[in-house]
Amino acid sequence: MDSAAGTNEKVGFNSWCPFLISDSIQKLKEFAQKIRKIGKDDPRRVFHSLKVGLALTLISIFYYVNPLFHGLGTSTMWAVLTVVVVMEYTVGGTLSKGLNRAFATLLAGALGLGAHHLAALAGDKGEPILLGVFVFMLAAMATFSRFVPQIKARYDYGVTIFILTFSLVAVSSYRVEELIKLAHQRLSTVAIGVATCLCTSMFVFPVWAGEDLHMLVAANLDKLACFLEGMGVEYFGEKMESGSLEGKSFLQSYKTVLNSKATEDSLANFARWEPGHGRFGFRHPWNQYLKIGAVTRTCACSIEALNAYISTLQQSHQTTTDLEFKQKVQAACAEMSKETGKALVELATSIREMKWSSTAGKHLAMATEAACRVKALVPAENSTLLEVLVSATTASLLTEVVRCTNPIIAAVEELSRLAEFKWPEHGRKAGAVKPIAGAESPPHVVIVIEK
Amino acid sequence: MDSAAGTNEKVGFNSWCPFLISDSIQKLKEFAQKIRKIGKDDPRRVFHSLKVGLALTLISIFYYVNPLFHGLGTSTMWAVLTVVVVMEYTVGGTLSKGLNRAFATLLAGALGLGAHHLAALAGDKGEPILLGVFVFMLAAMATFSRFVPQIKARYDYGVTIFILTFSLVAVSSYRVEELIKLAHQRLSTVAIGVATCLCTSMFVFPVWAGEDLHMLVAANLDKLACFLEGMGVEYFGEKMESGSLEGKSFLQSYKTVLNSKATEDSLANFARWEPGHGRFGFRHPWNQYLKIGAVTRTCACSIEALNAYISTLQQSHQTTTDLEFKQKVQAACAEMSKETGKALVELATSIREMKWSSTAGKHLAMATEAACRVKALVPAENSTLLEVLVSATTASLLTEVVRCTNPIIAAVEELSRLAEFKWPEHGRKAGAVKPIAGAESPPHVVIVIEK
Repeated sequence: MDSAAGTNEKVGFNSWCPFLISDSIQKLKEFAQKIRKIGKDDPRRVFHSLKVGLALTLISIFYYVNPLFHGLGTSTMWAVLTVVVVMEYTVGGTLSKGLNRAFATLLAGALGLGAHHLAALAGDKGEPILLGVFVFMLAAMATFSRFVPQIKARYDYGVTIFILTFSLVAVSSYRVEELIKLAHQRLSTVAIGVATCLCTSMFVFPVWAGEDLHMLVAANLDKLACFLEGMGVEYFGEKMESGSLEGKSFLQSYKTVLNSKATEDSLANFARWEPGHGRFGFRHPWNQYLKIGAVTRTCACSIEALNAYISTLQQSHQTTTDLEFKQKVQAACAEMSKETGKALVELATSIREMKWSSTAGKHLAMATEAACRVKALVPAENSTLLEVLVSATTASLLTEVVRCTNPIIAAVEELSRLAEFKWPEHGRKAGAVKPIAGAESPPHVVIVIEK
Repeated sequence: MDSAAGTNEKVGFNSWCPFLISDSIQKLKEFAQKIRKIGKDDPRRVFHSLKVGLALTLISIFYYVNPLFHGLGTSTMWAVLTVVVVMEYTVGGTLSKGLNRAFATLLAGALGLGAHHLAALAGDKGEPILLGVFVFMLAAMATFSRFVPQIKARYDYGVTIFILTFSLVAVSSYRVEELIKLAHQRLSTVAIGVATCLCTSMFVFPVWAGEDLHMLVAANLDKLACFLEGMGVEYFGEKMESGSLEGKSFLQSYKTVLNSKATEDSLANFARWEPGHGRFGFRHPWNQYLKIGAVTRTCACSIEALNAYISTLQQSHQTTTDLEFKQKVQAACAEMSKETGKALVELATSIREMKWSSTAGKHLAMATEAACRVKALVPAENSTLLEVLVSATTASLLTEVVRCTNPIIAAVEELSRLAEFKWPEHGRKAGAVKPIAGAESPPHVVIVIEK
């Protein structure tokens, strides 16, 4: 270390210079690769960026064309401002912000005019004082309303614009002569801006928050399935003794599911503003997706506990004396793991294709059966209890995962009814839900050894 | 149902009217109570609302006082606008938005002027075309940069303002004669607005994001402790057979911890913008709080698995044949649960008071010891294996919780070093961390029955 530092000190600026250049070229290359990756991961991002450019270029035509500009005057800038702040990635986001902005401007503009007329009654000296009191009171009350969770979730932006417009109209009424004209111009430019955003957002490569939510919920189920199927093959499967699980990608796949609540909430919030599109009607049951998300996260938590237990086990290097018994439990665990994984994949497919299938229930019934089978396993004479217990705990945790999958099936099934998914011809009669409802609480894994 | 509907139909408007009024009075009362509760839960919300009113009233003085107004002209409205959009609940939020707005305005204003001069070279007909191309390109590129996670987290608002200001300056340069004056006025009004917000935010009842994060992380540890201590007394304690846990509040306390990531991330992001205040220096290790948050959530996940297992067990109504053995395991579980709870309370207090104490490590060492004790328990002859297994699984899950507490202690201890908490006199010598590091992986609970 010391000698290296000594060498570095001797290197002068001239020798450093090419190094610095090549270093920054390297960094630029890395940055460019990162940017390219962001675009490649989701090409809709590139389209969105171009759409924002397009909307802004469209709105600036109002400046360039004489007759348009003279109609609106310098108020045109409100249209530009509206486009920049209202344009969101998803249609729902744009609609939510646009409608919030338009209605808040209308309401606050009217109230501002009222405040102006009221304050004018107080005479020249009283007017600014009265206006100040109005602005203070309305701003304080509106700001406080933002702490109400329901308002915060849906109308936060609207309240901001309400405060903004009311203050601007009320305060500038003290200076501006043609207040009505100003209010009218402001309202029409905001309307033009919102309309431009909505058209660009909805008709040019639209990104629907509802569809994103739909896909996200399905993808999260797939991530859990990926872990379970990986476990079924790599840990409980035939390779079970072959080596450590460290570095396997399927062990990490479910982790993002644990923190998906915020994204799901915001997408569902935007989705509610969206008109019917494609496979999604106007009153599509978006709330049900949040319910599926919640039970999916509970299941992810059980998987986290199982994963933590297994990784601790792997570090403790258990030796096996009763291979036959262990293999039987492992085989049952492998089945539980794989079948639950299949059930989840089935559910994800069912959501993605909006087509209910009872296969998920069948897979879960097989997993539950495997859980019951472990219970009945009778270990051979020479088994040590230690092994039995370790296997039982693992199987119990896995059973917990299987149990957590039940509410997921129930939630997706409810969605399939609410959102009117396609059902197979014999689906309704056969009562696809029955086997699941019956298995609501599979017995916990308990191994009874006969004495 | 039918007869009731029939009666309703016969009831005329006159009889309905008083009902409607009393109904809406009832709803209004409920709403008022809700509002009062929001204010009572955190009185800082009321102060914040008054602060926004104050800042707006202060800034509108620029309209009312003649010399001030003539200096800035109609640009004064940018100051009002800035106050409304920049004023956030926390100091960090206001600083982040204010600085983003000020610097983005400066940079984009300069670039906009440059674009104007460049476009002017293209002549009268070429100018709008060239300006359009510039606006399109910059808006698209800036919008795309918002998809880079690092930029999204810290400079999202700045990028919006950059696009806004550049478009406004570049496009209106086509119409406005005194562009430099406009840009100058705009910049100074934005600066005045930001300064007003910062002063109100920092000097009148300031709400520090850093302090909120500090308190939130400690409160989350307390919530986990509340569950564990409740379990220790109500489920594993002496009352163990007395009844179901349904409806106990401590069972729910930890659930909010599972979804705390988004709040923690946003508070930490704001905290980084805040200057040193009170007990927090400028370079306070806010990242460490996120690390503590992450391990706390992992522990909450283990608790969720334990809670799920126990509630399934409670439904299955196990009968006890070997009371003595069961009581021994329960006693050990009670100790694990209570001691881990105490360790977490100790950590929360240690964070809150910024004073490191080795007591948490000692409590956890006792919990780990109890976990080891379960391992050595030898059940009496007549115990059925079923009970042993159920107890073992519960104890394993609890051990998992104990194990999850280790990284929490390590993370808080790192924070105590990074943030220079007070250490007890003998603390550094005694090596408070040792017992914890030694117990990094307590053995999993395994009950060996001698044959």
